[in-house]
Amino acid sequence: QQIQFADDMQEFTKFPTKTGRRSLSRSISQSSTDSYSSAASYTDSSDDEVSPRDKQQTNSKGSSNFCVKNIKQAEFGRREIEIAEQDMSALISLRKRAQGEKPLAGAKIVGCTHITAQTAVLIETLCALGAQCRWSACNIYSTQNEVAAALAEAGVAVFAWKGESEDDFWWCIDRCVNMDGWQANMILDDGGDLTHWVYKKYPNVFKKIRGIVEESVTGVHRLYQLSKAGKLCVPAMNVNDSVTKQKFDNLYCCRESILDGLKRTTDVMFGGKQVVVCGYGEVGKGCCAALKALGAIVYITEIDPICALQACMDGFRVVKLSEVIRQVDVVITCTGNKNVVTREHLDRMKNSCIVCMGHSNTEIDVTSLRTPELTWERVRSQVDHVIWPDGKRVVLLAEGRLLNLSCSTVPTFVLSITATTQALALIELYNAPEGRYKQDVYLLPKKMDEYVASLHLPSFDAHLTELTDDQAKYLGLNKNGPFKPNYYSY
Amino acid sequence: QQIQFADDMQEFTKFPTKTGRRSLSRSISQSSTDSYSSAASYTDSSDDEVSPRDKQQTNSKGSSNFCVKNIKQAEFGRREIEIAEQDMSALISLRKRAQGEKPLAGAKIVGCTHITAQTAVLIETLCALGAQCRWSACNIYSTQNEVAAALAEAGVAVFAWKGESEDDFWWCIDRCVNMDGWQANMILDDGGDLTHWVYKKYPNVFKKIRGIVEESVTGVHRLYQLSKAGKLCVPAMNVNDSVTKQKFDNLYCCRESILDGLKRTTDVMFGGKQVVVCGYGEVGKGCCAALKALGAIVYITEIDPICALQACMDGFRVVKLSEVIRQVDVVITCTGNKNVVTREHLDRMKNSCIVCMGHSNTEIDVTSLRTPELTWERVRSQVDHVIWPDGKRVVLLAEGRLLNLSCSTVPTFVLSITATTQALALIELYNAPEGRYKQDVYLLPKKMDEYVASLHLPSFDAHLTELTDDQAKYLGLNKNGPFKPNYYSY
Amino acid sequence: QQIQFADDMQEFTKFPTKTGRRSLSRSISQSSTDSYSSAASYTDSSDDEVSPRDKQQTNSKGSSNFCVKNIKQAEFGRREIEIAEQDMSALISLRKRAQGEKPLAGAKIVGCTHITAQTAVLIETLCALGAQCRWSACNIYSTQNEVAAALAEAGVAVFAWKGESEDDFWWCIDRCVNMDGWQANMILDDGGDLTHWVYKKYPNVFKKIRGIVEESVTGVHRLYQLSKAGKLCVPAMNVNDSVTKQKFDNLYCCRESILDGLKRTTDVMFGGKQVVVCGYGEVGKGCCAALKALGAIVYITEIDPICALQACMDGFRVVKLSEVIRQVDVVITCTGNKNVVTREHLDRMKNSCIVCMGHSNTEIDVTSLRTPELTWERVRSQVDHVIWPDGKRVVLLAEGRLLNLSCSTVPTFVLSITATTQALALIELYNAPEGRYKQDVYLLPKKMDEYVASLHLPSFDAHLTELTDDQAKYLGLNKNGPFKPNYYSY
Amino acid sequence: QQIQFADDMQEFTKFPTKTGRRSLSRSISQSSTDSYSSAASYTDSSDDEVSPRDKQQTNSKGSSNFCVKNIKQAEFGRREIEIAEQDMSALISLRKRAQGEKPLAGAKIVGCTHITAQTAVLIETLCALGAQCRWSACNIYSTQNEVAAALAEAGVAVFAWKGESEDDFWWCIDRCVNMDGWQANMILDDGGDLTHWVYKKYPNVFKKIRGIVEESVTGVHRLYQLSKAGKLCVPAMNVNDSVTKQKFDNLYCCRESILDGLKRTTDVMFGGKQVVVCGYGEVGKGCCAALKALGAIVYITEIDPICALQACMDGFRVVKLSEVIRQVDVVITCTGNKNVVTREHLDRMKNSCIVCMGHSNTEIDVTSLRTPELTWERVRSQVDHVIWPDGKRVVLLAEGRLLNLSCSTVPTFVLSITATTQALALIELYNAPEGRYKQDVYLLPKKMDEYVASLHLPSFDAHLTELTDDQAKYLGLNKNGPFKPNYYSY
Repeated sequence: QQIQFADDMQEFTKFPTKTGRRSLSRSISQSSTDSYSSAASYTDSSDDEVSPRDKQQTNSKGSSNFCVKNIKQAEFGRREIEIAEQDMSALISLRKRAQGEKPLAGAKIVGCTHITAQTAVLIETLCALGAQCRWSACNIYSTQNEVAAALAEAGVAVFAWKGESEDDFWWCIDRCVNMDGWQANMILDDGGDLTHWVYKKYPNVFKKIRGIVEESVTGVHRLYQLSKAGKLCVPAMNVNDSVTKQKFDNLYCCRESILDGLKRTTDVMFGGKQVVVCGYGEVGKGCCAALKALGAIVYITEIDPICALQACMDGFRVVKLSEVIRQVDVVITCTGNKNVVTREHLDRMKNSCIVCMGHSNTEIDVTSLRTPELTWERVRSQVDHVIWPDGKRVVLLAEGRLLNLSCSTVPTFVLSITATTQALALIELYNAPEGRYKQDVYLLPKKMDEYVASLHLPSFDAHLTELTDDQAKYLGLNKNGPFKPNYYSY
Repeated sequence: QQIQFADDMQEFTKFPTKTGRRSLSRSISQSSTDSYSSAASYTDSSDDEVSPRDKQQTNSKGSSNFCVKNIKQAEFGRREIEIAEQDMSALISLRKRAQGEKPLAGAKIVGCTHITAQTAVLIETLCALGAQCRWSACNIYSTQNEVAAALAEAGVAVFAWKGESEDDFWWCIDRCVNMDGWQANMILDDGGDLTHWVYKKYPNVFKKIRGIVEESVTGVHRLYQLSKAGKLCVPAMNVNDSVTKQKFDNLYCCRESILDGLKRTTDVMFGGKQVVVCGYGEVGKGCCAALKALGAIVYITEIDPICALQACMDGFRVVKLSEVIRQVDVVITCTGNKNVVTREHLDRMKNSCIVCMGHSNTEIDVTSLRTPELTWERVRSQVDHVIWPDGKRVVLLAEGRLLNLSCSTVPTFVLSITATTQALALIELYNAPEGRYKQDVYLLPKKMDEYVASLHLPSFDAHLTELTDDQAKYLGLNKNGPFKPNYYSY
Repeated sequence: QQIQFADDMQEFTKFPTKTGRRSLSRSISQSSTDSYSSAASYTDSSDDEVSPRDKQQTNSKGSSNFCVKNIKQAEFGRREIEIAEQDMSALISLRKRAQGEKPLAGAKIVGCTHITAQTAVLIETLCALGAQCRWSACNIYSTQNEVAAALAEAGVAVFAWKGESEDDFWWCIDRCVNMDGWQANMILDDGGDLTHWVYKKYPNVFKKIRGIVEESVTGVHRLYQLSKAGKLCVPAMNVNDSVTKQKFDNLYCCRESILDGLKRTTDVMFGGKQVVVCGYGEVGKGCCAALKALGAIVYITEIDPICALQACMDGFRVVKLSEVIRQVDVVITCTGNKNVVTREHLDRMKNSCIVCMGHSNTEIDVTSLRTPELTWERVRSQVDHVIWPDGKRVVLLAEGRLLNLSCSTVPTFVLSITATTQALALIELYNAPEGRYKQDVYLLPKKMDEYVASLHLPSFDAHLTELTDDQAKYLGLNKNGPFKPNYYSY
Repeated sequence: QQIQFADDMQEFTKFPTKTGRRSLSRSISQSSTDSYSSAASYTDSSDDEVSPRDKQQTNSKGSSNFCVKNIKQAEFGRREIEIAEQDMSALISLRKRAQGEKPLAGAKIVGCTHITAQTAVLIETLCALGAQCRWSACNIYSTQNEVAAALAEAGVAVFAWKGESEDDFWWCIDRCVNMDGWQANMILDDGGDLTHWVYKKYPNVFKKIRGIVEESVTGVHRLYQLSKAGKLCVPAMNVNDSVTKQKFDNLYCCRESILDGLKRTTDVMFGGKQVVVCGYGEVGKGCCAALKALGAIVYITEIDPICALQACMDGFRVVKLSEVIRQVDVVITCTGNKNVVTREHLDRMKNSCIVCMGHSNTEIDVTSLRTPELTWERVRSQVDHVIWPDGKRVVLLAEGRLLNLSCSTVPTFVLSITATTQALALIELYNAPEGRYKQDVYLLPKKMDEYVASLHLPSFDAHLTELTDDQAKYLGLNKNGPFKPNYYSY
């Protein structure tokens, strides 16, 4: 997946702009924020317009060590956090298991992530394990203000609100790092901005960091660049590519969200619909499984013969897009490639054909539709009809952005996987003996990946079998794992 | 399904109230109206508050033979109708096939149905086939005002708006029937109110009606009562129970809407969830197929051993509700029975268990939850948390109303099946030779049921095989159907 | 299904020949016999060739009131019966429930069915319930000799062996009926031959029969003819068309046997195979569900638009056979029609295409393949390669007979459904009060159909829910059923 | 999978015995041989008993450079080969593509594999590409005599027959290697015996070998041992672990064979059966998918939390074996572990429970069933009833050997994947420039793995999409692959 950024990656030394494109290269967790915010009825739309930076606010214990939109929303935010906790029992369980020994005692963590109810459960878990935390938002739009308020009320030094300016964004990050008498020794980042800021502005702090945990594709890419350039003087952990997280972010999440995204936008009936899915990777596999199960007839396009053979064995016809483009009712791209659906394809689609992107923004040549002879009509939120001179309408979803980021939500359970992975990575880096990790970027050890999975099994009331000593010896395994070699394909 | 009204059916001679409960015993088509209206962004929320009855409005051809909210919305409504036409090609095809011969020439139809874009396609089809139509709404909330305006602009005598009073409701019906120099000879009804009004107020008109087409469970029940009492002097057709409509209203529609309804309200992840579905009839079968396909583990409760055996063979464990109530994550009732989920069951559910009704309003004993020790918290539209003293939350959807009526939409294609069935029933009754239909209630002839199905096949690009003369003789069938005996179980 | 015999039905007054074609119009139970016999290793292939009619045999109690191949095989047969009993717990349960009251006390039953381990369980159940039984075989090839021996040893008057001549066949039947001092009062028939013999040869016995239970399509057809001609002076029960039996004989049984039949004959890999299934009735639905589930891509042909619409909604493309005949890997006919696959289709199939019949013998025009330019090559039992001059091979299974009858087995559980239905029908007719049944052909009452189903639920450890008094009243139902109206479509 | 041999691996320096256990650690291809042989009706059961080593045989061209059972069976064998060719179009296609350039010109290959129709297609492909081949059998029972005859008739120097003694076995291998004026330069091995023989007996030949291709788990293990010991002076390719082969040998093959194996042995009905599958790796995943699809209710046991989480998300309950052992109808082990099913479990199973092994021989503690109080009854080939004193029967399949090796067949298509992989590996090693491969064991390069897949796509009429130059650049890929990084999880 890193491949896709080959020719449009920003240089690390330039500040990225705080706008749309970047947020999409982050982890999927953002989507839940966006969608949820719009769904939540209590959001402060009529709030006053004074900048939080200009407000004097104090929590009930008298502390002003935060900057949020409105501390009075704390109670609402607390309820949101409590609801999220119900689906994040892995973290709650981690709190309980590790609370006695406080594995993060002494850790001073600066964090920069989306600030949502789910993140709040993570932050409060880190605190419960002994850490001190200072937090800012990795996206200027995604903060749930009431959740930030609840964190501030609970004593977390949080600096974030929905609708920050770019200047606000960096100001908030700086407030996290730059505090007299407190020096961060761990970084939790989503996108690499915080890491960049510390690296550039506070090189002395950076040198003493014991570990960086990074979760986004973009941020990981930037770390690898830094490492390659010999400038990474800190061990970093790439949690984006852990097996458990990958499966949940792609296969399982897409299996659920493709139906949701299509229904919420178009109310389309799936039964009997002819659908072409471009790409049979994890994302494509998830989409196809769901659509076939609901009665759609699915065609696949593929460039990779191994994935194509899998599609055949799974009961899908593998075609070139041009073979079926005239007959299909829905086109879904899951390739990570660019210009998979061209204007020529769009010209040949039948009336009412729905087009959407499941993987990245470049897959459909949306620009080619911005020509004078075509009329765009916004018929619902996230739904445009592009109308040809002969009256044909193509239904374009999310205007060229990812369907599941834009039009559906992400279950808290998926976010729990991610958050637990982050927490364990922080614990691992903070407690690792000298020398286990060098100044490099690491994947999460398989044993910890397995541990993340095991923490989520109780949600399903699943009961693991334990190896006997005899069996472990027979298999040449440690009874506690890891159970598979690194190259194992799950 | 008529069974369920055994002890709460209104007497025919009393006016039903124009409120909630009744609309739920109507056809499912209402739901689409409700949901769509709320989704459509252009709806006139800020409209003036003058009653349409007090307004003077004229369409562009100078006619005032209608009463709608605002004739100026006609253009918006026309677009909605055009979009609906794209998914109702069966009716458009019917227009084309029958247009030359005008099978409804001379028909004067009074109609009383939900007034939505889909109904508009039906009404305009009837007009294209030669009929004159006068129309009112069968529900005081469900009218799409802009669609009504479009119909008025096109010359249909429509009397309906969203938010009628009960007095308005009957006034509108009366305006349809009571017009100098025009006497209705056909009735299309959804709920039986129009039929009742004509029967009571205009007995001389009623006697000369050539046929009544009724689509709701309630209305059909009232017709059977009238027939039993020897007072039905007109042939009537029960289109509710045609095979094609039944399958689409129940099995197929629920297969699609159960996932949609649960996602839109709770964002629940289906994978690995333990779900109990009470009742394995058509509604239950549809729900179970979808949930299993998305990775849920489904248990069934049943009272009927034949349905229970089907559930076993389809791979579901058949249990008593009390056996699994402590462990399930979701409870869905699809029985049509009452008190299937009792307070005792609710007390034993685990925290965060979702409860919803798929079939009728009486299945969950919601009243039992209105006790002082329980706290209700509305967390989203259609979602309540009922909180026990120990903090346990049960998530109740739609407050005790049907999930798919309340929380999801119905695809236009399903409504197309219904509308086409209605149109064919009208044509059949209007053109039937003397004596084919007596003063009784009839099911749609199987051959016409097959014709409805055949008109919808082109949407799937499906190609029927025709019998050769030789084969038809061998099978003892007419080449054009009907192809199955009446008792055939599809 | 009776339809298919329209033009080749034998006249009732002619003796049918005892050969192939007829046995195929019988119930499916035969197949298990055939297949099982071939599988069982202990079958007496080297037996002496003396006709059983010429042998003197006596069982261990000294009785000679039977005629079987070799009474010494009784022990082997008993083991087969015991194994069958393990999967026929419904009958065992019936024995237990009804044993005290002996509901068949006084019943003198003559039976004519396939004689297999499963039938033996039925016969011994009837005896346990109080009946006296005399039995012959309805097919000259299907008798399991060791099972017949076990029955004879246990005291049942059985007259049957594998490989009877036609003369033997009628001699056996006659021996059942014609016995001094014993007069039958009930008939259990499969095919109508026994009924016919009694009707023709022993009219005085026939008049005093209290009931006939008939299970085959052919036999039921003959009864309806007799009834129509006013000559049926006895109540008869058509158990062929009971809901439970129909579903198991068609949908569920084909879902299991289609894969089995194809694998055993051709070892074909299902994944990715393109398959066309002609006919989407119960048989077709069963085949399609299984094939799709294993990764095949399935196309449907249909003449009935309602079934075609179901196929669309279930995710299958509906085509004409000629559209896909060049590309498919497997052709399966499930229509009951004739000449569905013609020589023209066969000429256009691709090399290695597999062709088989799932429903009846007339579907493929096999005769058209008996031309000089085509070479037939028998490559395995039940598998012929038909070779075109250019070397193309079409793989024809079972030489034009039904695949699941010829190439796969039927689970004992399916036969248990049938046998239980027969037993209950006998009890019902024998015990019915005067006047409940007239001289006509009846379907099994729904309540008894439900009872058959309920007796099979314990095999699945399924637990039925019981209606409360209140619920039964609300639904207008008796707490013990029947639970559905007669026209209900399961 | 190599893990499982940890404590019972033979020392390389000892001759393995030519019996049961070893052949099971070979590639799956053996099973097809066994099963097919038993199915084929033309096998020479009544053949004379003279040892082939003592016969003088000459093919039609006068050559005696072979040793087979009976050269006169060549015609039968040729037909078998032709039938196999129909499902091995990838090899035929390889012949055509590479025939002009003769990539194996000069190659002198000694091979030791199962000798079946499918292997014959491989051998004749190698010859068509320019190689000279001498061949023996890797298993003393698996040779199809008529296929060996056909190869001999066609001029291949083949030394193999069904029912060799151990002495014959090594004599045949030696005859392949030891020929005046001909020195092998390539080895194709399945099990490592040929490699071992050359290494030990002809060290000078061994040193000049250009490459070894090994396909079995056992043989690969021995090569790694040799390499570790620094004694492997030749590049070797491990084709066992190529992605394409792995998926087909495990996931896809088990999905097909589990149903087949259970049906052929027990005629069990799948619908509604409760099944526990131990292990949710590739083998387990394949079994579960098939069983669930046919209506079984499946439980999983797992030791690895990641696989357990996958099972949950796929809709299976994860349990400990003891939780469900009393209630299940079928137990299938897919772990590769030992003593997964113990005597204690077996004691608690219910009557008629079916037990079988899907992965390796050690999973069920069969030895524990060899106690005096238990009776074993062989009821069919490969089916034993083990009977407890109280009459309870447990149905044990294949006496403790792998179900799909013993009781079902392997589709030719799966063998085609393996054979094509072997052919490409030979071509690669033979043509690789100096230095590309050192004296080590290599995995098949991903690009060749993709090529194997691509050669099999035409069987499905699948059409790959090609990257444009622009897209390839965007993705940073070569247009011809490889398309995925080595660590990619398909």
